[in-house]
Amino acid sequence: MTKLIIAIDCMGGDFGPSVTIPAVSKALQNFPQVSFQLFGDKKLIEKYLNQIRLKDRTEYNNRLRIIASDNDVLMSDSTAIALKNKKTSSMRLALEAVRDGQANACISAGNTGALMAISRFILKMLPGIDRPAIISAIPTLKNDHVYLLDLGANIECDEKRLTQFAIMGDQLAKCLDKSKQPKVGLLNIGEEENKGSNVLGRASNMIAKLDSINYVGFIEGNQIFSGDYQVVVTDGFTGNNVLKTSEGLSHYLSSKIKIAFEKNNWTRFCGFLARPVINAFKKEINPEKYNGACLIGLRGIVIKSHGSANVNATYCAIKEGIQQSQQKLPQRIKDQLLKVIY
Amino acid sequence: MTKLIIAIDCMGGDFGPSVTIPAVSKALQNFPQVSFQLFGDKKLIEKYLNQIRLKDRTEYNNRLRIIASDNDVLMSDSTAIALKNKKTSSMRLALEAVRDGQANACISAGNTGALMAISRFILKMLPGIDRPAIISAIPTLKNDHVYLLDLGANIECDEKRLTQFAIMGDQLAKCLDKSKQPKVGLLNIGEEENKGSNVLGRASNMIAKLDSINYVGFIEGNQIFSGDYQVVVTDGFTGNNVLKTSEGLSHYLSSKIKIAFEKNNWTRFCGFLARPVINAFKKEINPEKYNGACLIGLRGIVIKSHGSANVNATYCAIKEGIQQSQQKLPQRIKDQLLKVIY
Repeated sequence: MTKLIIAIDCMGGDFGPSVTIPAVSKALQNFPQVSFQLFGDKKLIEKYLNQIRLKDRTEYNNRLRIIASDNDVLMSDSTAIALKNKKTSSMRLALEAVRDGQANACISAGNTGALMAISRFILKMLPGIDRPAIISAIPTLKNDHVYLLDLGANIECDEKRLTQFAIMGDQLAKCLDKSKQPKVGLLNIGEEENKGSNVLGRASNMIAKLDSINYVGFIEGNQIFSGDYQVVVTDGFTGNNVLKTSEGLSHYLSSKIKIAFEKNNWTRFCGFLARPVINAFKKEINPEKYNGACLIGLRGIVIKSHGSANVNATYCAIKEGIQQSQQKLPQRIKDQLLKVIY
Repeated sequence: MTKLIIAIDCMGGDFGPSVTIPAVSKALQNFPQVSFQLFGDKKLIEKYLNQIRLKDRTEYNNRLRIIASDNDVLMSDSTAIALKNKKTSSMRLALEAVRDGQANACISAGNTGALMAISRFILKMLPGIDRPAIISAIPTLKNDHVYLLDLGANIECDEKRLTQFAIMGDQLAKCLDKSKQPKVGLLNIGEEENKGSNVLGRASNMIAKLDSINYVGFIEGNQIFSGDYQVVVTDGFTGNNVLKTSEGLSHYLSSKIKIAFEKNNWTRFCGFLARPVINAFKKEINPEKYNGACLIGLRGIVIKSHGSANVNATYCAIKEGIQQSQQKLPQRIKDQLLKVIY
């Protein structure tokens, strides 16, 4: 593995360094050739670094660099405020490290809108791409995953933007999963050609014309989890609602099954016996595994971790950043875009 | 209970009379004051009616009337074809029975687009409503349900239409659940006022101005199942995707749990012991219970049953039609609309 440097916005998310630092510590252990630049409140970062075992800490020291930032981008900050007034925030400094070639990727659990806007301003877009899209893997029935984009960066999308999403999602699947001909579907309320808005109809025609993409046409919401598709394209409003509804429904179903097993002593006994099975099931569908959405379309790698991510989930987001860095994802998407666009 | 007559489009859905007739038979048994008008292929309907026990059949005869139709609306028919060429279809004749006061409600599992278009043409809209919306109850964590609309009838909605949805959903919750101040939320990708499209911002302002509605503002997809809201308003494209994604995810999770219990002999034994608990859980979240979406906003009651509905699910759709008929739902919505609009 080539030596990589990952820039961490330690202050982002609901828990800041209390979660980011233990996650970095886990990554230090598991990825011995990766170094980390830690952006944020130096004292706080030191405090949590000191909780790492002294022996390990000494060993890790040459793979850690703390870069103090002045202020943080708050969850309540508008993108305008974040862009204009937070020029020395941990988020911005981490992104500048990627721009300046000092880091291969930036991981942040901060304000999504601000991360989008600052990334776009600092890193710039790939040729032919207007705005970043948020893409993430979602588990499927075939023990595999499907990439869904956009998850909330672009609430209204015309056919060109949806086509850009298809190209980028296709490339991500090809790079990260070595998928040769990923099946790409466009989310709609029916499979028939005449279904949905005019924009979707035009987008479908545009994507169908791209030889490099194995486009299967419209697919419906119930097919996302089937495992029959590797990339599902939609606008950011729908994608965000699909993702959040899935979170809500998973919570609803797991709460209901818990209640069913707590009904009486017999069901509790059954629950006790079945616990390993239930735990194996939970582990398999664990959303933490899928933390780390990518802001795709930029000239650098930016991974957005969930605001409420815990240590394990944050570690998964870091891992995602490392994998994309190994694959030199933006360069590969750029190469494909140049083939398709020009 | 007042005497009611329900018009059944026996030919709609994937299974036609083989499912609709047994469902009607169950309703005949459970609702002794309800009569049924059965629209469709007379021979086929008779064939399935003859499968009812002879004793019951004789008893039911005076509560059953078969009305032969010439042709059926096919799932592949465009709305134009359905409107122009299928004037004596089972779907249309059933809707005409509602229009002419011969039936209190129409139940159909046929082509949704055609059902929408023919309903609108035959029954006409309530004052102040432009087009019907599809509304359905969805289970929540608080052992209750939430009404979600629109589920696919209106793919693009302006603020006026979203406001009409809020008024209709609010009335449905008030009528069917005796909910005094149902909490009404507008689906968006964030709770903050500046989130989402301009249309959503304007819709939020319009709904907030209605004194009769307990409007709580924007809510996100993960809150749909929380039980904190009784009505969730969204456009038909998003609503349809939310609903279908939920179907897909439920299928994914139940398949995964089945696989977890089938791993080896020990897990199979645990599964055997836990089966009654799992079955109780399945029963509680059973989507069949929630079959029967209402085409709201019309001057008559039209219930859309799922195309793939089985006997139990179809029975639930019939029950929904009976309940709405008892509540004289369109009249009550009309009364409220007149208060709000004029």
